[in-house]
Order: sequence, then structure tokens, then C-alpha cells
Amino acid sequence: MDLFIIGSFIVTPYKVIKDGAILIEGTDIVDVGKARDLKSKYSTRGYEVINATNKAIIPGLINTHTHASMSLLRGVADDAELMDWLNNKIWPIEAKLTPEDIHVGALLSIIEMLKSGTTTFNDMYFEMEEVAKAVEITGIRAVLSRGLIGLGNEINEKKSFKEGLTFALKYQDAADGRIKTMLGPHAPYTCSAEYLTDVVNVAKEHNLPIHIHIAETKQEKKAIEDAFSINLDNKGIIEYLDSFGFFQVPVVAAHMVWVDEREYRILKEHDVGIAHNPISNMKLASGIAPVPSMLEYGLYIGIGTDGPASNNSLDMFREMKATALIHKVNTLNPTVVPALEVLKMGTIYGAHVLRLDHMIGSIEPGKKADLVILDLQKAHLSPLHNIVSSLIYSATGCDVEKVIINGNIVVNDGRVTTVNEQEVLKKAEEHAKALLERANVTVD
Amino acid sequence: MDLFIIGSFIVTPYKVIKDGAILIEGTDIVDVGKARDLKSKYSTRGYEVINATNKAIIPGLINTHTHASMSLLRGVADDAELMDWLNNKIWPIEAKLTPEDIHVGALLSIIEMLKSGTTTFNDMYFEMEEVAKAVEITGIRAVLSRGLIGLGNEINEKKSFKEGLTFALKYQDAADGRIKTMLGPHAPYTCSAEYLTDVVNVAKEHNLPIHIHIAETKQEKKAIEDAFSINLDNKGIIEYLDSFGFFQVPVVAAHMVWVDEREYRILKEHDVGIAHNPISNMKLASGIAPVPSMLEYGLYIGIGTDGPASNNSLDMFREMKATALIHKVNTLNPTVVPALEVLKMGTIYGAHVLRLDHMIGSIEPGKKADLVILDLQKAHLSPLHNIVSSLIYSATGCDVEKVIINGNIVVNDGRVTTVNEQEVLKKAEEHAKALLERANVTVD
Repeated sequence: MDLFIIGSFIVTPYKVIKDGAILIEGTDIVDVGKARDLKSKYSTRGYEVINATNKAIIPGLINTHTHASMSLLRGVADDAELMDWLNNKIWPIEAKLTPEDIHVGALLSIIEMLKSGTTTFNDMYFEMEEVAKAVEITGIRAVLSRGLIGLGNEINEKKSFKEGLTFALKYQDAADGRIKTMLGPHAPYTCSAEYLTDVVNVAKEHNLPIHIHIAETKQEKKAIEDAFSINLDNKGIIEYLDSFGFFQVPVVAAHMVWVDEREYRILKEHDVGIAHNPISNMKLASGIAPVPSMLEYGLYIGIGTDGPASNNSLDMFREMKATALIHKVNTLNPTVVPALEVLKMGTIYGAHVLRLDHMIGSIEPGKKADLVILDLQKAHLSPLHNIVSSLIYSATGCDVEKVIINGNIVVNDGRVTTVNEQEVLKKAEEHAKALLERANVTVD
Repeated sequence: MDLFIIGSFIVTPYKVIKDGAILIEGTDIVDVGKARDLKSKYSTRGYEVINATNKAIIPGLINTHTHASMSLLRGVADDAELMDWLNNKIWPIEAKLTPEDIHVGALLSIIEMLKSGTTTFNDMYFEMEEVAKAVEITGIRAVLSRGLIGLGNEINEKKSFKEGLTFALKYQDAADGRIKTMLGPHAPYTCSAEYLTDVVNVAKEHNLPIHIHIAETKQEKKAIEDAFSINLDNKGIIEYLDSFGFFQVPVVAAHMVWVDEREYRILKEHDVGIAHNPISNMKLASGIAPVPSMLEYGLYIGIGTDGPASNNSLDMFREMKATALIHKVNTLNPTVVPALEVLKMGTIYGAHVLRLDHMIGSIEPGKKADLVILDLQKAHLSPLHNIVSSLIYSATGCDVEKVIINGNIVVNDGRVTTVNEQEVLKKAEEHAKALLERANVTVD
């Protein structure tokens, strides 16, 4: 069904069109402009007309870093030291995850993401075929990579590498083009320089980008040195990675908290995409990424929630507000990272980070129809002085009324149209319970 | 109507009662316990039975610092320097506020607060009779004080002081005891030591607590010195206030960002209540209050949103999550300010801060029936491993289904029962528009 959407505010996000309209044919946005202009240019006959009066239409939000299936572990451990959290809770549970758990966890997270306005997520985990199936069913768009650990057992290393590549090649452009794939080496402290070089070579050969965690914690540099018995001297982690050509292929780097300004040049030169995860970085006490100076340097930064076990939410509206807030207080400057910049980070910059800005991230003719419609008739969004301010500082995911992805309505009246939500919630509860029992982990 | 509530989780917040029940007669909680115990002790005849299966029941949230009527100014200026924000936007607009504006702004904020689970708010502004009227109509509980400026024109000073006292005396225990009053000297940099001493003496005479802003910005000490041509030498602001006996009466101190550890002794000795406003402090780049060390010292800290123009939300769930997050990253310690402590800050500690812990802040027999019921059957709250974690890290105000204040159901199925929401939204939009026109302020 082709769509003719008429709405009070369209935030593209480059401009705000009041009383605007969007014409969608098939999966694509065909035209955008003032409603009166589009109405005189086109007949609405043959289109499903969506009336979005008193509503805002924005590009679908792009979550640039997640581990969606970890929703089954949401709240099993909070307020804990990272290594305590990993050793005593997360890892013992992850060791017992079945492919079906991964599938159910992904479905649950996708429901949460869709309902709160996320249309694309960039996911790294394992058993990724199960995540791909969940993407296929639900109608969301995703970039998927199998996490690769290059540490320890060589047979396992090779096996997971092969799995990761096989997955990436098999699922590239699957689900009507909604799935893109990358290679997912976990981090520089879990993958040696040799291993990462192998990944880069394979990525180059198959034209695959890389999704990786970089510089999440202050201890990471020492962790690299210890893991591989090397000495980085004064080198930062970015300089270290650059020294063996890691950035020759497109890279999405999650976290980037402990990056030095002198390393920005390398990031800029290779257009490294940054996935900023403010809430996870706060909750795990990792640190505050130098976002204002990275933005000023012209680096592209998207926003991510990280996994639901370290947030514990996938609502990009909360993440956008956190992004706008944390850097102001960190620099004691209330003018940095303003609302419009944050909205761009949540949409078009995120698309650029994932190398998908030719397809998504803004409301423009020729782009895929990935849109979110928010109801503005709410006390917390009233009065409406500035739509961008309202979106970043006042709105939450539950203001989302409709979500369109690839031209299909996947959320209507706040309900997911593609799967049975209550069934997934029930399954998730059952799977989570059985999983904790298998792992012999109790929640305090 | 007396109420018999049966629910899956009651978080008192001292303990979590699974499959519990609460008996309410008139305005009061009469009994709390396991549902099977209460069912065998009491007949449900004559009670309205509320089935809260798969729901959580928590004490009503307590917003310890607001300027509710500023909702009309929500989003008129963000991402701006404080003095630019005040001089060019907020103050010119506030100068044109009419009593009716204040009333409509308060109604709008109260709707937002009720719907997101706040049952008590501590408000400082002017034309407070208009706020009191809004409290009366809507059924919320509030602590109200007229803001007093002791700087500049002596006639104005005396007039506002008299107004503040008259209001406090007239409205103490109004609206069936839902309204409490305080005196509201604005801040130590806008009120001289002499003025504050007068306020303290009057407060003592009439048994009124004081609501004031203290140590919000790094510049405040210098602002005090400049305003009153004094030299504080090495004294902190708390020491300065203590030097003339300011803390002889109960004080609610908002912000408390720039407080030195050596001043904690004074705060403890006088049981000064602290209203922590993490989002406002981040957005205005004021700084990060030393909450972990103040909590460790045994000081009472409640949570506040500050006014809707410097947040721009009144959702205490967002504020509680921000409280849990910001101090972890600030201390690089993920174990500080854990979820349960935050829930206490949002409820019983907040009640203590406002000197109302004998009445509200927890679900216990003898306390007023101020309760919030949240729906847990949502993707973002699933699976449910830990109810307290879910409340702090995953829930938002829009999970609130029912709110009970003083034994009355004021929110049902997410809708306010006491006023017409759509009418207030419409009025708020009209008043805000007219106000900005009168003030000749445009929004960028």
C-alpha cells in the first residue's frame, strides 16, 4: 500500500516543515514538502492517507550499538563492578543460552525498539541467524554481526570466525534488503593484532564493514598489553589499531570513551563511525566520551543503547536526552551538544556511522520510508514552543504512535502489527526463568 | 470509597511483598501484608477491590523541588548559558505572567506529574494561591511556598514577604490537609543575611519550614559576596548560612551541588533536607552534587525535577534513573547510589526532606494512602528479574496506570479523573502563546 502522510510537523531533521506531507510508494519516500503543495501535485487516490494532525513525523531512530538478545538478562545484576557482573552473572548465563533463547530475546528487544521509535539497530551477538529471523518476522531494519573473540582456543577462534563470515555473506541484504551484515571482532583486548588483521583482510575481500567495541573503559589499554604481552608505550588504542591498518575498512566503533584528542586525526581520515552509549557508560561507570570535541572535529557520532542488561532500556528517546545532558555537565557548558545535533545523532549521523546514509536517516525523496509518528497532544509535550526541544528533552518512546519501516506500518496506535506482543512477553518470561535455572544464577 | 488492593508486587519501599494486599479506609492505609493474610483477616465487602495482578504498587513519588507553573515556558530556550537564558527569555516572560497563567501552568504540570506517578510536589513560585487552587481541584498533595527575593527594592521586599507569610498561614493544611506550606526565600545570593534572619525568625514564630535554593552553581559564592559586598574568605555557603543561625528551623535545600564535605556536619546536625535535581543540574551545566558521600554521611536526599523549563520533564522515573546513573560515572564506581536507595530517595527520603515522613513516603499502616500502580506487562519491563531494578532502570512515567492520593483514585487507566486534560492542554497552549506575545519573546 502506498502512503500519503499529512502531518503538523515533519522534522527531516535538516529542517522542520510545518503542515507538511510525505508521499511513499512501495518502500521509498517519493516526495516531501508542504501539504498544500503535495496535494496540488498529486491525487490522493490509490494512497492510504494518514492524518498526522497535531503529530510530529521524524526519521526512524537508529540504535547504533546493541546486543538485543540480552533482554533476557535485563535486571539480573545492576549496581555491580564490571568484572563481578560479567564473572558471576552475565557469562555463566550466556554460557547456557540456547538458539531459541537468542531468538526470543531478540523478538522481545525488537518489540521494545519498534514501540519506542527505533527502526534500525546495529547488533553484535552470537547465534545471529536467530536474530536475523526475528528481524525478518518483525519488519525492523538491522545491521547484524556475529561477535568474534580472538583469544584463547584456536579451534574455537577459527570456528567462530568462519561462522561470522558465513553469516555475513548469507544474510547480506536479506529480508527485502532490511538486513545488512558486518564482521564483529569483539574488542582490541579480546582480539590480537594478528587476529584483527585477518578480520580486516577478509572484510576487505568481501566488502564488509566492521563492528567493534573500542576504548570502553579506562583499563582497556592495560588489558590489551596484558592479554598480548605487548607494550603500547605512549600509544593510544586508536594509534595502536591504526599501526596495523585496522581502519582500512569501514569501522563502527562502539563506546570510544577513552580516546585522546591527538587520535581524532586517524578517526577523521578513515571516517570511523562512533556509536556513543551514554547510559551504559554511566551505569557501568565506564566514563564520559569526549563527544563535544569529537563532534567539533567533524567526526560522525551515532547513539546506541548497548545491551538491555547494561542500560536497562532500549528507548532511544531516553538515550538522546542523556546525550544532550551528560556532556553539558561534564564540560560545565550548557551550550554544547544542543537538541538538534542530538536528533541528528539519533538519525542521520547514526545512518552515516552504519554506512547507510544513502538509504536511511532522513526524510528525503529517494530514501527508504522509515518514519516515526509521535502524538504531541500530551501534557508533558505541552505547550509546544519548539518541536526539536520537545523531541529531545520531553518526549519518550511511549509517545510513539505509528512506525513505518520500508514503507510498511509496523506499529499502529502504539501496537506492533507484525508479531503477537503478549505471546512474546510470555515466552520471554519463561525462557528467562529456565535460563537462570540452567545457569544456576539467582537474582539478589 | 474504601479500597482493597491486591497486587503482584508491593514495594513499600523497605521490602517487596509478593502477592500482597493493601487495605485503605478513608484517606489512610489501614493494613498491608500478604494477600492471603489480609483476605483471611478482612471481608472485602464494602470495599472497592482493585485487582493489580502483574502490576507493582509503590508509594507515590515525591518531587522535592519544582516551579510547576513554568510549564508554560517549557522549551522556550534550551542549550543556553544561564544568564542568557534568564535575561533574554525567562525573566522577560515571567514579568508578564498573569495569575491565570500561573493557574493554567500549574494545572498542566500537575496533570503531567499525576500521570507519571508523582503524588506530592514541593513548589516555589509566586501567585501561589493560584497553585493552591490547582492542587485543590486536581487532588494532588503539595508543599507550597511563595518565592521571596530580598534584593533590591525594600517596598517590594516587604510586600512579597508579607504575601509569602499570609499565604503560608492561610493555606497550611488546606485541601483536606493535602496542602502544607513553607516560607520560600529564593537563595543566599538574592537574600541578604539580614533578610534571611528575618525569615528564620518568622518561620520559628509560626512553626514553618523553609524552602530555598542553595549552592546550585560554582559561581554562587562569588555572587553572594558581590551582591552584599562581603567576603566569605574560606567559608563555604553552608558555613556562611550557619554563621547567622539559618538552620535553626527545618530547611529544604534545593540543588546543593557545590557543598564541601567539611560542611556535612552542619547539615547533619540540623537535619537539613536536600532536594537533588540531577537533570536540571546537567542541562544547565551547574555541576554534579556529591550525592554518594552525602548519603554515606547519613544526610537525607530527596529527588526533584526543578521547573519544567530547565528539564524539560516532570517525570520522576526519568529523574530517578538519572540519579542512579550520574553518580556512578562521576565517581567511576558502578556500585554507588544503587536502585533501592534511589527508590527510597524518590519516596521516603523525599518525605523526610519535606518533613512529611510521618504521613507519606511509604506503604505502612497509619500513613496516608498515596499510591501508584504500574503495569508490568510491557516489553521494556520484561522479563521481570528484579522489581526494584525494573522500577528504576526500565520503567517510565507512562507505565503508571492508577494513582491514589489521600485514598482517592486521581488517575485511572492512565487518565486523570479530576480535571479535563484536553481542556487544560488547550488552555495551556493559548496562554503560552499569548504570554510570549505580551513578553515580545520569540522562540528560535
